[in-house]
Amino acid sequence: MQVKAAVAFQAGKPLEITTVDLAPPQAGEVLVEIKATGVCHTDAYTLSGADPEGLFPAILGHEGAGVVVEVGSGVTTLKAGDRVIPLYVPECRNCDYCLSGKTNLCQAIRLTQGRGVMPDGSSRFSYQGEMLHHYMGTSTFANYTVVPEIALAKIRPDAPFEKVCLIGCGVTTGIGAVINTAKVEVGANVVVFGLGGVGLNVIQAARMVGANQIVGIDINPAKRALAEKLGMTHFVNPQEVEGDLVAYLVDLTKGGADYSFECTGNVKLMRQALECCHKGWGVSVVVGVAGAGQEISTRPFQLVTGRVWKGTAFGGAKGRTDVPKIVDWYMEGKINIDDLVSNVMPIDRVNDAFDAMRRGEVIRSILTF
Amino acid sequence: MQVKAAVAFQAGKPLEITTVDLAPPQAGEVLVEIKATGVCHTDAYTLSGADPEGLFPAILGHEGAGVVVEVGSGVTTLKAGDRVIPLYVPECRNCDYCLSGKTNLCQAIRLTQGRGVMPDGSSRFSYQGEMLHHYMGTSTFANYTVVPEIALAKIRPDAPFEKVCLIGCGVTTGIGAVINTAKVEVGANVVVFGLGGVGLNVIQAARMVGANQIVGIDINPAKRALAEKLGMTHFVNPQEVEGDLVAYLVDLTKGGADYSFECTGNVKLMRQALECCHKGWGVSVVVGVAGAGQEISTRPFQLVTGRVWKGTAFGGAKGRTDVPKIVDWYMEGKINIDDLVSNVMPIDRVNDAFDAMRRGEVIRSILTF
Repeated sequence: MQVKAAVAFQAGKPLEITTVDLAPPQAGEVLVEIKATGVCHTDAYTLSGADPEGLFPAILGHEGAGVVVEVGSGVTTLKAGDRVIPLYVPECRNCDYCLSGKTNLCQAIRLTQGRGVMPDGSSRFSYQGEMLHHYMGTSTFANYTVVPEIALAKIRPDAPFEKVCLIGCGVTTGIGAVINTAKVEVGANVVVFGLGGVGLNVIQAARMVGANQIVGIDINPAKRALAEKLGMTHFVNPQEVEGDLVAYLVDLTKGGADYSFECTGNVKLMRQALECCHKGWGVSVVVGVAGAGQEISTRPFQLVTGRVWKGTAFGGAKGRTDVPKIVDWYMEGKINIDDLVSNVMPIDRVNDAFDAMRRGEVIRSILTF
Repeated sequence: MQVKAAVAFQAGKPLEITTVDLAPPQAGEVLVEIKATGVCHTDAYTLSGADPEGLFPAILGHEGAGVVVEVGSGVTTLKAGDRVIPLYVPECRNCDYCLSGKTNLCQAIRLTQGRGVMPDGSSRFSYQGEMLHHYMGTSTFANYTVVPEIALAKIRPDAPFEKVCLIGCGVTTGIGAVINTAKVEVGANVVVFGLGGVGLNVIQAARMVGANQIVGIDINPAKRALAEKLGMTHFVNPQEVEGDLVAYLVDLTKGGADYSFECTGNVKLMRQALECCHKGWGVSVVVGVAGAGQEISTRPFQLVTGRVWKGTAFGGAKGRTDVPKIVDWYMEGKINIDDLVSNVMPIDRVNDAFDAMRRGEVIRSILTF
């Protein structure tokens, strides 16, 4: 079938809206009509060419929501009409990782996903007879896409696409970092570096689980109002702090953060996030994605005196199990997604959405088809 | 009273056996007759002058066992005749740290301990009228010492001093790293860097809790036999590995260590210990103490893909609570300390014991009085 897509033909070039060919879903695969998709920094990182694993030409997009149109042979858990969120971290429930009970990093289709193809090694997308790569196993910048069954979370039928699509990445990453990876408990003090789409979700999850102080850090004072609405209790602009930021944060939290979250990808901030943690028990979670080859450092004394350095991918969430719950939390008013949607625009304006994100003007732009 | 002590008058100089003056225990303090003490790398580190927090003149030693002789006013949990192990990490059971349930790093007397004095700010030791510093709150290189009540673990009356003194540091550090900090579970794969006094205890604790593979790493093949006796299942000499050690260990453990322990203090090995951990859940524990100012580094990708970097001090053990249990385990044959005692010699030969340790000839030398 012919579908409308925003194609990344080359690194560093704008996306091109065009018509591409999509082959039918094969065994274990599902044809999904994408109804809405967010635009995330990870898409921009890959498009820029800085991602060493980026493949071109490709159909980007990994923060979507849609409806099942057709299922391939052997698909048993989904049927036409089901609302779904594509998962760039699948959940096969059968691999050693899924069965470990210790991680969400299902490895069932990792190799082919990394190569930009479906599990059978081929792509469903093509343009004028040339293969186009899938991206993160999702490729949501197209009005129809094919996704493995194990990489689709079935959600409730009344969930609005242009909101819950964000649960496909930013919302779950931030909320999951708090509840799955750090396991923040009631009364804890939390420090969040970076008040973008992920950091704001860390904040609202910290509020949801009953954190005490919720300190947000950003050099952009325009981030303050929404962060406070979502639960931030203290705003810190590092450019207004005299002296050492870590010492300031340890003082503000009366001994250090019980939990800190780095949501920008800056390795210097990752170190500050660790070192502002409380001696004896502070846990720092790396959420942001650093540039290729960059390294984090600290004195081992920080660890020997009880701080713990962890990281999270997709918030430690097992997508098929956890994503439907987060959709429920949104529908029940436990979490706020509406305020994270800065604007909704047609897919034809995808490059405008990238530009606005690069300028830091938006939390999230949502594209519709 | 006059006591016999090995005094560190100056950094970098041998200890001097001499007679020093010891004042009676004050409120909350206990006079202990030291019966045996181990010699640990930390004593040598301080004596060398490399420890930026080292104070001189001082009475070193922190791995001892002895008998209560006299208690100061207000001491309620100990009486003359009780066998005790001095604790360089006290357990007051009242500070925020003790009450957190998250750490063993009691802070009740940290500042004065760090300044080489008793909690009231003065020293009990003097030499020809000049104050001598206490060391780590224990100063076990003297046949009598004064220790705060909260820094003494009461142990069973039949425990042999020249063995259980090692529970004052090396044994508890290694065993506690496994059971308190890493919480190794049955069936796990464990990798241990460094087969000295601490690493060997990591190995026997891993065996005790039912670990599967227990991989020991050391460049000294002479360490192999005892490590195997204590439970090591695979020995790796990095000098005999072709290519990358991390890749070798990931292959040997079929995906990486569930838990790794760095027991040498080498920051390069700390990185290898983290990176040889299993994707998704591997936990690496820094046990060794690095030189002043040295830093650890890695790519944050290691954490984002599920590895966890932690550290431990005194094995995360709460001394008054946990040390008596470890003494019981020794007496019941659950752990082996006898084979960790390379030789027993009088305190007069303390400098020989340091020399033998520096040459790597011994696991532990025990000094008696």
